[in-house]
Amino acid sequence: MTDDITVFTGNAHPEFAQEMCGILGVDLSPTKITRFSNDCLQVQLRANCRRKDVYIVQSLVPPVQENLVELLLMLDAARGASANHITAVIPHFSYARSDKKDAPRISIGAKLVADLLATAGATRVITMTLHSEQVHGFFPVPVDHLSAIRELAAHYKGKDLSNTVVVSPDFGYAKVASEFARLLKLPVAAGSKRRMSDDTVVIDEIVGDVRGKKVIIIDDEVATAGSMVELMDKLREYEVGAISIATTHGLFTGQAVERLNAQDDVLEIVSTDTVPLTEERTPAKLETRSVAPLFAQAVRRHNAGESISSLFSDDVTHG
Amino acid sequence: MTDDITVFTGNAHPEFAQEMCGILGVDLSPTKITRFSNDCLQVQLRANCRRKDVYIVQSLVPPVQENLVELLLMLDAARGASANHITAVIPHFSYARSDKKDAPRISIGAKLVADLLATAGATRVITMTLHSEQVHGFFPVPVDHLSAIRELAAHYKGKDLSNTVVVSPDFGYAKVASEFARLLKLPVAAGSKRRMSDDTVVIDEIVGDVRGKKVIIIDDEVATAGSMVELMDKLREYEVGAISIATTHGLFTGQAVERLNAQDDVLEIVSTDTVPLTEERTPAKLETRSVAPLFAQAVRRHNAGESISSLFSDDVTHG
Amino acid sequence: MTDDITVFTGNAHPEFAQEMCGILGVDLSPTKITRFSNDCLQVQLRANCRRKDVYIVQSLVPPVQENLVELLLMLDAARGASANHITAVIPHFSYARSDKKDAPRISIGAKLVADLLATAGATRVITMTLHSEQVHGFFPVPVDHLSAIRELAAHYKGKDLSNTVVVSPDFGYAKVASEFARLLKLPVAAGSKRRMSDDTVVIDEIVGDVRGKKVIIIDDEVATAGSMVELMDKLREYEVGAISIATTHGLFTGQAVERLNAQDDVLEIVSTDTVPLTEERTPAKLETRSVAPLFAQAVRRHNAGESISSLFSDDVTHG
Amino acid sequence: MTDDITVFTGNAHPEFAQEMCGILGVDLSPTKITRFSNDCLQVQLRANCRRKDVYIVQSLVPPVQENLVELLLMLDAARGASANHITAVIPHFSYARSDKKDAPRISIGAKLVADLLATAGATRVITMTLHSEQVHGFFPVPVDHLSAIRELAAHYKGKDLSNTVVVSPDFGYAKVASEFARLLKLPVAAGSKRRMSDDTVVIDEIVGDVRGKKVIIIDDEVATAGSMVELMDKLREYEVGAISIATTHGLFTGQAVERLNAQDDVLEIVSTDTVPLTEERTPAKLETRSVAPLFAQAVRRHNAGESISSLFSDDVTHG
Amino acid sequence: MTDDITVFTGNAHPEFAQEMCGILGVDLSPTKITRFSNDCLQVQLRANCRRKDVYIVQSLVPPVQENLVELLLMLDAARGASANHITAVIPHFSYARSDKKDAPRISIGAKLVADLLATAGATRVITMTLHSEQVHGFFPVPVDHLSAIRELAAHYKGKDLSNTVVVSPDFGYAKVASEFARLLKLPVAAGSKRRMSDDTVVIDEIVGDVRGKKVIIIDDEVATAGSMVELMDKLREYEVGAISIATTHGLFTGQAVERLNAQDDVLEIVSTDTVPLTEERTPAKLETRSVAPLFAQAVRRHNAGESISSLFSDDVTHG
Amino acid sequence: MTDDITVFTGNAHPEFAQEMCGILGVDLSPTKITRFSNDCLQVQLRANCRRKDVYIVQSLVPPVQENLVELLLMLDAARGASANHITAVIPHFSYARSDKKDAPRISIGAKLVADLLATAGATRVITMTLHSEQVHGFFPVPVDHLSAIRELAAHYKGKDLSNTVVVSPDFGYAKVASEFARLLKLPVAAGSKRRMSDDTVVIDEIVGDVRGKKVIIIDDEVATAGSMVELMDKLREYEVGAISIATTHGLFTGQAVERLNAQDDVLEIVSTDTVPLTEERTPAKLETRSVAPLFAQAVRRHNAGESISSLFSDDVTHG
Repeated sequence: MTDDITVFTGNAHPEFAQEMCGILGVDLSPTKITRFSNDCLQVQLRANCRRKDVYIVQSLVPPVQENLVELLLMLDAARGASANHITAVIPHFSYARSDKKDAPRISIGAKLVADLLATAGATRVITMTLHSEQVHGFFPVPVDHLSAIRELAAHYKGKDLSNTVVVSPDFGYAKVASEFARLLKLPVAAGSKRRMSDDTVVIDEIVGDVRGKKVIIIDDEVATAGSMVELMDKLREYEVGAISIATTHGLFTGQAVERLNAQDDVLEIVSTDTVPLTEERTPAKLETRSVAPLFAQAVRRHNAGESISSLFSDDVTHG
Repeated sequence: MTDDITVFTGNAHPEFAQEMCGILGVDLSPTKITRFSNDCLQVQLRANCRRKDVYIVQSLVPPVQENLVELLLMLDAARGASANHITAVIPHFSYARSDKKDAPRISIGAKLVADLLATAGATRVITMTLHSEQVHGFFPVPVDHLSAIRELAAHYKGKDLSNTVVVSPDFGYAKVASEFARLLKLPVAAGSKRRMSDDTVVIDEIVGDVRGKKVIIIDDEVATAGSMVELMDKLREYEVGAISIATTHGLFTGQAVERLNAQDDVLEIVSTDTVPLTEERTPAKLETRSVAPLFAQAVRRHNAGESISSLFSDDVTHG
Repeated sequence: MTDDITVFTGNAHPEFAQEMCGILGVDLSPTKITRFSNDCLQVQLRANCRRKDVYIVQSLVPPVQENLVELLLMLDAARGASANHITAVIPHFSYARSDKKDAPRISIGAKLVADLLATAGATRVITMTLHSEQVHGFFPVPVDHLSAIRELAAHYKGKDLSNTVVVSPDFGYAKVASEFARLLKLPVAAGSKRRMSDDTVVIDEIVGDVRGKKVIIIDDEVATAGSMVELMDKLREYEVGAISIATTHGLFTGQAVERLNAQDDVLEIVSTDTVPLTEERTPAKLETRSVAPLFAQAVRRHNAGESISSLFSDDVTHG
Repeated sequence: MTDDITVFTGNAHPEFAQEMCGILGVDLSPTKITRFSNDCLQVQLRANCRRKDVYIVQSLVPPVQENLVELLLMLDAARGASANHITAVIPHFSYARSDKKDAPRISIGAKLVADLLATAGATRVITMTLHSEQVHGFFPVPVDHLSAIRELAAHYKGKDLSNTVVVSPDFGYAKVASEFARLLKLPVAAGSKRRMSDDTVVIDEIVGDVRGKKVIIIDDEVATAGSMVELMDKLREYEVGAISIATTHGLFTGQAVERLNAQDDVLEIVSTDTVPLTEERTPAKLETRSVAPLFAQAVRRHNAGESISSLFSDDVTHG
Repeated sequence: MTDDITVFTGNAHPEFAQEMCGILGVDLSPTKITRFSNDCLQVQLRANCRRKDVYIVQSLVPPVQENLVELLLMLDAARGASANHITAVIPHFSYARSDKKDAPRISIGAKLVADLLATAGATRVITMTLHSEQVHGFFPVPVDHLSAIRELAAHYKGKDLSNTVVVSPDFGYAKVASEFARLLKLPVAAGSKRRMSDDTVVIDEIVGDVRGKKVIIIDDEVATAGSMVELMDKLREYEVGAISIATTHGLFTGQAVERLNAQDDVLEIVSTDTVPLTEERTPAKLETRSVAPLFAQAVRRHNAGESISSLFSDDVTHG
Repeated sequence: MTDDITVFTGNAHPEFAQEMCGILGVDLSPTKITRFSNDCLQVQLRANCRRKDVYIVQSLVPPVQENLVELLLMLDAARGASANHITAVIPHFSYARSDKKDAPRISIGAKLVADLLATAGATRVITMTLHSEQVHGFFPVPVDHLSAIRELAAHYKGKDLSNTVVVSPDFGYAKVASEFARLLKLPVAAGSKRRMSDDTVVIDEIVGDVRGKKVIIIDDEVATAGSMVELMDKLREYEVGAISIATTHGLFTGQAVERLNAQDDVLEIVSTDTVPLTEERTPAKLETRSVAPLFAQAVRRHNAGESISSLFSDDVTHG
């Protein structure tokens, strides 16, 4: 049944697409990406798309704008080549963080990008750990929204979790942190942020009991790790013990690596592989867990007309 | 400049529309709503709409489905009558609570209703305190999303707020609670919920320091008050003092009134008037603050081409 | 070939869906309909929809607005769950009666509802006996418009139809009445209506020869039976004999049952089962003929890629 | 206020556009219509459209397809030229007769053409006497649907209408005929048609009392007059007196003129001027009443933001 | 795999459709085209379309507007009849010549017609030799744009091409002429046009070396042959030898036949069969090469999910 | 009348926007562009947009993808801020070069970008010298397509143009080159290109008489100048005299500056200012002519409802 799946990847994260294809037992189809002398891009899909179920894998990681436009060109090319269905597989949909209008006259970027994907030809999207659950509703096409929570929790199975608390960096993410904590049967706490000026936000207290405990900080994304370091500084005021950081999307941009390497009480940083990492952008204590099998599973199940939600639960309601 | 504004109201909350019109200095235009013998509705707008800026005021309060369809019929009627612009004024957009896909194969109701409004002809929406900020992004048309936070906070100005803490019922609403707390210069706490089964969620602890303090509970909506009572029971385990409840949308459906009247330590319930209340659906200690002036202001400013965001801040960026 | 049909039903008329499923030999898939405390609805489709041909059965019967919004939520849920095709099966599309703009600034409700269905995700519609044939053209998606005429006519086969005339309540329905009359080889007559005021219409004469004859009155829908009684009073001025009433959509709302039971010269009321009836809403002399087999046939044929129009005729043009 | 109206006309009926412009007091703007050697059309609007309210006058009269494509090209040209609003003024929307799917696998042509007009750029439509009222609902843009009934009735004011009956050719048009009859305080009758084969329909009786009376036949459109002659033959079986024919759209195509001229008992044929007539296509007894003033009035009122519906009634609900 | 292809043709060029069907081994399905007495068209597809891959063959040849509207009605009929996919097969898309806005306030006709086709229901288009390659981008649906270059070049294989030059009538077509020339390993030249007035363009010189050479003139379309004769007159100023004319779309309208027959030094006119020709519209020296096999191949390959681009090249990138 | 124009600029070319504003007599409104740590962009428009005619100036120059996404975010922000009209002012629309599908399974990038602009909220576009005229038709919104031909020609007025020929680099651009040549009353020639492999194209001859003449090469865009140098090498084989280069969009990317500075026989390079240049990207002999006045004129005229086409001609047809 999987024989008419055709998978292409852009430049953002070909290793991820390759790993998915390996699990699916299909070849990754070649693409040719050209940059013209005026800096415009052209992408050629170099395998037949006609009446195929086409999957285009592209993480919206830096350089985000290049990767986004590349993805849009690939979707449009697949449509023009008479593909039957076109699924954008976006392991990290980074624009999800622009999910509200918290200043006058800004774009809700996640909504705009969701609309652009549909305009370019995407008929479905598979993605993971959107910054907030509501972003799912921004897409005019069906979305399979995978969660990394179980994969991250699996890392801690069998480890000593005594006297440990799960910490969310802020209230907005506390609900997911709570779910994660419950998988590990741990309590939860959260940072409370105060906006100092238009550009400055500080964590002014930790709500919940963390004093003297070991902590697992969980966040959807770690980029420059600036706010992560700030959070750890605040936690240390409460004399916490060893710190573990768990995140779905480990970007480690800017000074992230040196910042994180400098934290002696950080035991480990657990991340999935939705973001490709060069050696110099890899923190010393990083533990990576691949979610390519989860994405491959989602593709295989969809192609076979099987439920994807049942991947995530024992709920009797899954068909 | 306000002379070509035409305002209609559905059956949901005519008093609100009337108050807005009074402030704007325009007459509320008549509508005739007919229910046919097969239960289908027909709405006739009984004033000329041609090339006018039409405003249709309808809160999505119980009976929600009746009020929703009524609103859709009115929007479509205004479009067919060659209105220039058609703004749906929805003081309480109750479907905003259906903002995520937290079970398989459900609709994200808020997104669907937003799309239905646009299909029916709405070219803009004015609403207040959406359950989550992200719901703003569900609308395919511009939205002026007003906040009741300042109006509710104004109630507490000049009162004794010593030893008081603001409490959010859950993490999802904690960010707004924090904003409200900061306006009053108070600390914040939040309920942590645990899902017991597919249908049952319980508050298993209060995250943040509430012991022995007076509390102001803030939530976007109070309906049957069931979870509010559960929260207060949990708070009393921490021996809190007097309780004040602040909410934007006071529905007080089902057993809300008897439940709330039975809470002796509740000092007062502060709500806006986005929801119409009959006498028997009015809790004994209710204090209502009208937000019709805020809505009228938004209409007036939009009509005059003036910034609405500047209503809410001293930010130098407002034009 | 019917194995990937998945059928759901809303609350409007589950018996009809059940009967269709029995004929099709598929299980009716479960749904879970929740009413939140703020009166908003949520519908969960409790069977896998992925790449399935999904059928959602919902008659737009009272409470019409509840049933309509329920249907819209179910369509949207099926779309979000990656169904391949989504057919709204609407045995009684009651809004079809709002098919023209016969007063200024009203919505053409049937057109609006047709658009809402498409917005919510319907890719096809199966329905029966739209109030006027033109309503077919309001839908932006393909419609299989079934007719109950043959089923109703079958009731009269073998009965004594001597000295009998078919009567249409008004000119608008006279064309369908003529078709029905020709199936039974009977002449036709029609009521002529006069509008007395904005709200009052009276039948002022019967056009065509009815004097002293037995009559079969045919109409698409009987709701409160108010105009039906008025028509019979007028007919009696022409000293007609026994009266038979035939209708596709027997709603019998309001005082219909007591009104109809009080007519001694009414022999029988023949209706299909597009509308669910409780015992107290069932007139004494009602004869019901099920059209669920016709709907099941249409589903089966469509699923097999066979012509549906050939169900209705011997026309050599049917493929 | 009328100064920024710009009116263009296609080739179909420039005299009508000219008369409208005369009443409105604006110049008819020039167009240049080119037929290329491969038979494709090009239309150039030869007056500035930028930010103007543009009206394009084109009746869909023979050659219908030429006139339709010409209209579509003009609408698109106005849009591309940055017009603010673009109104298609279509005195005779002939495709309205294709308003239902009365055979398998045909297009509902009126719906298709309505959609094409919107695709090409029409933001509003003004038209007259659509074949059925429901066609109004086919348009995705606002429609001002004018009626010629009063204008036609005005012709009979002051004439001897004793012993006269209004006759509709079939049941489908009987409702409009009734309205017309009531304006003249006359009774109404209708032809009953029987389909003999796929292609043949005959009038097999007249329903209603016509024997020995003078008749006024009213129909929306008279084309070849074939069915009109058939109707008159049938009426003569009832020994009717003098015949008057009233129609909105007098096309008089094919053998219409000779057919009509040959009817000695036809007193007169009353028609509006929505269709341009050459001398040889003008029946001998034709009386034409211009509706250009009605169209001009509709344009003027819309432009001034005044109600158009109030043109047609004394209804107190008009704003 | 080809068993669910259903092919219909309009009136424009049934022979072409018939030939395609012969090659595909399917029957051409019947259509019934009716012209009503008011000149409106109705098309009935007389074979089942339900869940079929429907192909509608219609060349936009004179009478272009009739053929276009006929095509639009057929597409809409197929959509309403629940076809799965609907491909418009347009051997000659004549409106492609209206591909730019070279005068103020004209429509870009090719773009408009492309949009109309999609509005009417086309989900894909197969066409040949669009006037410019960019027209491909006007279509909102996938287009398979076939080229006749190889077929035309095949005519010259094995002939004496010594001292021969390929001539393009203008610069706009010179790029295609160059491709054609390279297939035959010949040099290329082009006419340079000068616009004399709004309506008059003359060829004022030939750019490239043609003196004393035999020439093959290539153009996408030959209609009245007026500019072709003008080009030949200009070429004779350079004392060229025998002339061969090659074109994809041989319309030969107006005085084309007599004009071309009068040119003694024209050896032959080579054209494909995208345009149907009557005997009197056939130039004496016409050689026709059928491209129906190429269209049939494209249909077959698409239906089998095979690449169509690989038909045209040995490029290793074709899947 | 220009008082409600609000102009914003992105990062691409603020000097151009500034110059336009100076001519228009309006202030350039401020924007705040933020790059988040995950590389996503956010743009805040820092002036009121409500009911304003908003213009957003952004050239699609390198880094093209950054500038494109920035533009899309700004358009969306303006729409969400209730602007009345939103015009994208794009001095250099570089993606216009991707205007055809000259390889299998590529996107027609110019069409995709045109659609993305409309999705993001652009209601009109002003741009200059699209690579081909047909690209105009890719936009679903009205486009004012300005030409730099007259501005470039003005540079040569009064200079010695004896024995001079205008040269187009290829046939595709020869039509524009001809127009330019006619403004200067000069003959025209063109390079003929041969594709050597999938990636390599060479100029194999010059079609037209250039031997021993001075040449003015004209092209729409000069990027790395690689093909320009190749063209000049080929021209020197014909012993041409001094060379002048004229181009609308002077990008001078990669090695353009050193390449061009090394050509001793190049007298001058004439370009407009649609592309911002740093000092090191400025060729030694560059002459820049500003087209900001032309853009400002187009904005002013549109705002005043005056014809823009009349800017470019004395054609009596301009309104």
